[in-house]
Order: sequence, then structure tokens, then C-alpha cells
Amino acid sequence: MKPKSQIVNLPVYKPGKPIEEVKRELGLEHVIKLASNENPYGSSPAVLEAMTRELANVSIYPDGSAAELTAVLAKHLEVERDNLIFGCGSDEIIALITRAFFLPGDETIMADQTFSVYKSNADIEGAVTIEVPLKNGTHDLPAMLAQINDKTKAVWVCNPNNPTGTIISEQELISFMDRVPSNVMVVLDEAYYEFVTDEAYPQSISLIDRYPNLVVLRTFSKIYGLASLRIGYGIARPEIIDLINRVREPFNTSRFGQVAAMAGLQDQAFVQECSKRNAEDREWLQNEFSRLGLPYFPSQGNFILVDVNMPSVEAFQSLLKQGIIVRSGFHVYPTYIRVSVGTAEQNRAFIAALENTLAEYVAARP
Amino acid sequence: MKPKSQIVNLPVYKPGKPIEEVKRELGLEHVIKLASNENPYGSSPAVLEAMTRELANVSIYPDGSAAELTAVLAKHLEVERDNLIFGCGSDEIIALITRAFFLPGDETIMADQTFSVYKSNADIEGAVTIEVPLKNGTHDLPAMLAQINDKTKAVWVCNPNNPTGTIISEQELISFMDRVPSNVMVVLDEAYYEFVTDEAYPQSISLIDRYPNLVVLRTFSKIYGLASLRIGYGIARPEIIDLINRVREPFNTSRFGQVAAMAGLQDQAFVQECSKRNAEDREWLQNEFSRLGLPYFPSQGNFILVDVNMPSVEAFQSLLKQGIIVRSGFHVYPTYIRVSVGTAEQNRAFIAALENTLAEYVAARP
Repeated sequence: MKPKSQIVNLPVYKPGKPIEEVKRELGLEHVIKLASNENPYGSSPAVLEAMTRELANVSIYPDGSAAELTAVLAKHLEVERDNLIFGCGSDEIIALITRAFFLPGDETIMADQTFSVYKSNADIEGAVTIEVPLKNGTHDLPAMLAQINDKTKAVWVCNPNNPTGTIISEQELISFMDRVPSNVMVVLDEAYYEFVTDEAYPQSISLIDRYPNLVVLRTFSKIYGLASLRIGYGIARPEIIDLINRVREPFNTSRFGQVAAMAGLQDQAFVQECSKRNAEDREWLQNEFSRLGLPYFPSQGNFILVDVNMPSVEAFQSLLKQGIIVRSGFHVYPTYIRVSVGTAEQNRAFIAALENTLAEYVAARP
Repeated sequence: MKPKSQIVNLPVYKPGKPIEEVKRELGLEHVIKLASNENPYGSSPAVLEAMTRELANVSIYPDGSAAELTAVLAKHLEVERDNLIFGCGSDEIIALITRAFFLPGDETIMADQTFSVYKSNADIEGAVTIEVPLKNGTHDLPAMLAQINDKTKAVWVCNPNNPTGTIISEQELISFMDRVPSNVMVVLDEAYYEFVTDEAYPQSISLIDRYPNLVVLRTFSKIYGLASLRIGYGIARPEIIDLINRVREPFNTSRFGQVAAMAGLQDQAFVQECSKRNAEDREWLQNEFSRLGLPYFPSQGNFILVDVNMPSVEAFQSLLKQGIIVRSGFHVYPTYIRVSVGTAEQNRAFIAALENTLAEYVAARP
């Protein structure tokens, strides 16, 4: 049974350690996970009510077309229903785009440090990934544009970028889109859209009519607090949505994902409150990093990439022993860790632990 | 944006009508859905308890490797953990297998009337599907064997077969496997495994050590009553599981799917009770079909394919007006409908409605 040749050398995904396992292994009672950019405030109470009601239907298949959720979201976003497609997280939309469009030898352009799922799916399809260095942690759109050629199938723009948290502005996006050939898809991943406070941030949905090659991705995993349920979505012109739908499994989202997303959408006060708290706590963390003399990228997401001036894996391990899980191992930034913005209390605990980590590292130096 | 050429002509999945829509359109108060082979007894109460407990973690990503569920299922099946992979329904495992293994021009063999997801995924990969006619509604393994050539990548055997409900025996399977070249994968889809009462049915898991090219698929959607949650699994040798894992999205199953599956596995009394009731009610339905003079395929699943001696789409519409949703449109069997085995009460209502349908059709004949 010969697999596709490009599959053989793909890395198998190594998941992070579950909190319970970290507690057991390190003998810790209390562990704070600031590693996955989850919402520390959970989700809207309306979500839990909707899910509890839906327990009566656990044995019944979901509506594969997510018709009711589609209608609710279309109204919320002021788009048509055929502009939308749902996935098992926006991760799945990324996979579906590559499965529908990418051929072996096609080229696809992305930043050299961005969400890893773009490249892993390009690899699966045998496409060639062109990684363009970030400039001050930000997408270098002119440099990405310069890489477009006849083989280019798609360009990925993560905005805010994961892991740097930086954004490109509406003006930069428009200038870029005006120059991208119309046969090259631009996938704008806005998983962290709702956390952005910078007014220069694009109102991307209004650009879809203007650029038929634009696909916007968003998710319910982050500010809506539904990461456990795996539900995200894509917004694009109906012709693109129709093509992506052809490779979608009939029942790719769950009943609970669908009802939770609808309930979450109805509670925009929760979203606004989470965004406000995140912005305040993000600023507090950034001020703390300044106080500690640690460079960081100014973030518009619910996470910050900070330079701890020591090998990030060592910082990760030192923090882990103190019961704090962060993310390390970003190849372009070997001395940076990514920390999610938690509750004020979690952030204080993280900073205290980080001060220990830094002090121990300095003390251990020859 | 040019998609893969094979995508352009793929049919877009048309979902069945949700019960609520049928009620509204036809002005019906009570609708019985016997169209999707769901468990009419719901799921174990332990499932609902586990899900209710898990509501506290809605904002937290699932364990992408499903480590705890893997351990519980491995123990239940008496296999190793690296023999298992979980998917967003076993549908997703089918998609992952084709995505990892199928190249354009590869051939894949299946029955001419079987679960449609095998062919749709082969189509997506540009593979050529060879459809081998069922023989008396049953997989014709010798004829399928005769179609294997150097281009063959995989053979799909749905056992019990959807939609005919027939099985192949252990002896037939072994005789087949002994002759299939070891570089051709055999995917044995046992979605309806737990409903089978025929002792000749294969104990397929014990065959995995003997045949490294065998992949068994099962699901929690059917007897476990978790269709809403999208969780199924594959069982194979670690080398195959490892390759399939390389194309799996990091978080392809939900927290609720994982905890519900674990709770379901712990309540085997529920499974046995549902299997017993299904066997009794399946027999009752088959006797009713005999009484009405309607040929049917003897089923080992929780559904029956019955010849209503009239165009199946007309029977479907007539039953729909009476508030019963069944499945029609099987191209090899244009006068057959597939009906799920419901509760005794649902089955009686279905038979009463079917008698009306048949009487009206006969009365309207010239």
C-alpha cells in the first residue's frame, strides 16, 4: 500500500500535553495553560443553555448544511448564505481549500513564521511552500507579491498573525489585493478578528465583492470560547464556496457546534466584554515585558510573542515546572515564547513565574 | 483560481430535509425519520451525564490525540493504542485514507450500490472507481477480486452493506483476503457491526495481524447513538495508522465526542439491549414485508432495503406526506426504499403508511 510520496516524510502531529498529564508528571496541583489562545472566560452562558437543550438530540445526525446557523451568521455578517461554509474548526476549511485547489508542483506563499496548518496541508497536496520572511514580525506583503508567478495557487495572510500578533492594515491589504492576479487565491485568516482594537484593521468582508479571489477565515474557537466543539467558517464569493463544498464531508460539523455557535452569536455583549478585558490585560502584559526589558511584538490578538533572551525551550520547561504552560519552538524566533492573555490573576502568576525563570537563567550563567 | 479538474464536475452534496422543515412544509405535527439509521433509543444515560460534566470545558481545545479515549477503546477491543485512529465520523477516516493514499489514475474497487462516501472521496483524488455489481444484494468478492490489477490501490467492503444490509461471512472474507495482493488495501466498513446477529459474521479485528493491508472502520454514530457528535474510528496495523495520522487535522474530534464515546463504551448493557430490540423489530418488519408480498434483502443492520414495486421516489413522497421520512434513490434498485428499524411504535406507523402508499399506487393504475 503505497501512500502519496509526499506523505511519507510529513511529520506526525505531536500534541501538547494535556493539563492532567502535566499535573501528574510534575506533581502539581494547580496548572495554568496559556498555550492555546483559548478564552479564559469560557463561553457565553447562552452557549451552555443551548447545548444542554440539544442533549435530547444526541443520536440524531446534524443538519449537514448547517442551514439554521448559516442563516443566523449571514444576518450577523450582512452577507448572503451562499457566501458561507462551515468546518470542523477553520483548520478544516484550510484543508478543504488545499484539497479542492492544490496540485502537486503548485506554489503557495506564506510568511516564514505563521500558522502551521497552511504548510502542512500544502505539503499533503504536494504543493511547494514559499516562505517569505516577516518584517518586524509583520507580513511583508510587497515581498510576498514579488514571489507570485505562474505556478502560484494561493497566498496565506494570517491577520493578526499567529504567533506574532501583528496586523496588516486595510490600506496595505487593498494595495496588495489590487496587485495580486485574479487567478491567485488570497486566504485571509482572521481567527483573532474579534480581539483587534487597531482601527487600521481591514473590514475584510466588504472587500469580498471587490476581490473574487479573496477568502476570509474566522472561527468560534477563540473569542466565542468554543474550541472544544470544532467549528469555524469561511466567507467568499459563492463560486469559491461552491467548489470548496464539493470536497466537504456531508456531516463535518456537529449539532453541538452548530447550536453553540448560534447561541454565541446572539450574545455579542459577551464578545465585547471579552475583547475589552483582553485588550486591557494584553496591555498590562506588554507593560510588564517592558519593565522586565523583554522585547515583544505589539499584539492585536489574545496572545503575545515575547523575547525571553534565553532558549525558548528552556524557558518553556522552567515555566512548566512552575505550573505554567506556554508555547515555544518557533523556528524563526528561538528565544521567544508565545503566551496567551489569561485572566488578570493568571497573567500575574505567569509574570511572577517568568521572573523566576529569568533570574534562574541569569544566575546559572558562567 | 483553478480547482483540481476532477472537482469541477463533482455533485455538491444535497442534504436531506430536517424534520422541522418537513413539518412546516407539509403542515404535519408528528414526523418519524427512518432515513438515517440512527438509534431510536438515543444513547446511554451515561453519555448525557458525561457530556453535561464536560460543559465546564467548552472553551478548551480537545486532546488532539484523544489519548484517554484511545486507551479505553484499545482495552475494550483488546488491541494496542497504535492500532487506532479517530475521525469526525468514520466518514473522515475514509477521506483521510484517500487523501493519504490515492493518486490520480489509481483504481479503487467497490460494490455498485454501497456507501456513497467511498466513491465521492475517490473522485476528489482523481482515482477511478470500478463498481462491481452486487449479487443478490451481497458483495461479490470473487468478481471484485477479478478486477484487481496493478493500478488498484484499495477495495471497499461495506459489511453489513449499506443499503442492502447483507453481510459476507468470515470464511468468505478470509478466502478473499488470502487472494488480495498485500499492496492493495482492503477497507472493511463495519459501521453496523453491533447490530449483526449472524454467527458467520467475521471477527475482523483478529484478522488485522494476519493481513497487514486490512483496515476496519467502525463508528459511534449508530448503535452508540452519537451521530450528532461526529466520532468514528479505524483499526489497522500501526504502519497504516501512522500514515493516515499524517493527513489528520490536529483537532479533528471534539471534546464532547471523546467523552461521549468513552461513556458509551462503558455501558455495554445499553448496546446489547439496543442490538436485541433491533433484531426483534427487524424481524417483525421483514415479516410484515413478506405479508405484503414485498421482496427485501435479509438485513443484519438496523435498516432494510425493501422492494415496494413502484418508483421509489414516488413511494418516498407518498410516505413523506404521511409524516414518514425514508431513503430512496438507490440507482441499482429504483423500486426499493431503505427504512431504518425504529421503535416498535414507529415501525407500526411506517407499515400502516406504507400500506396506504401501496394501495393508492395500485388504485391509480390505469
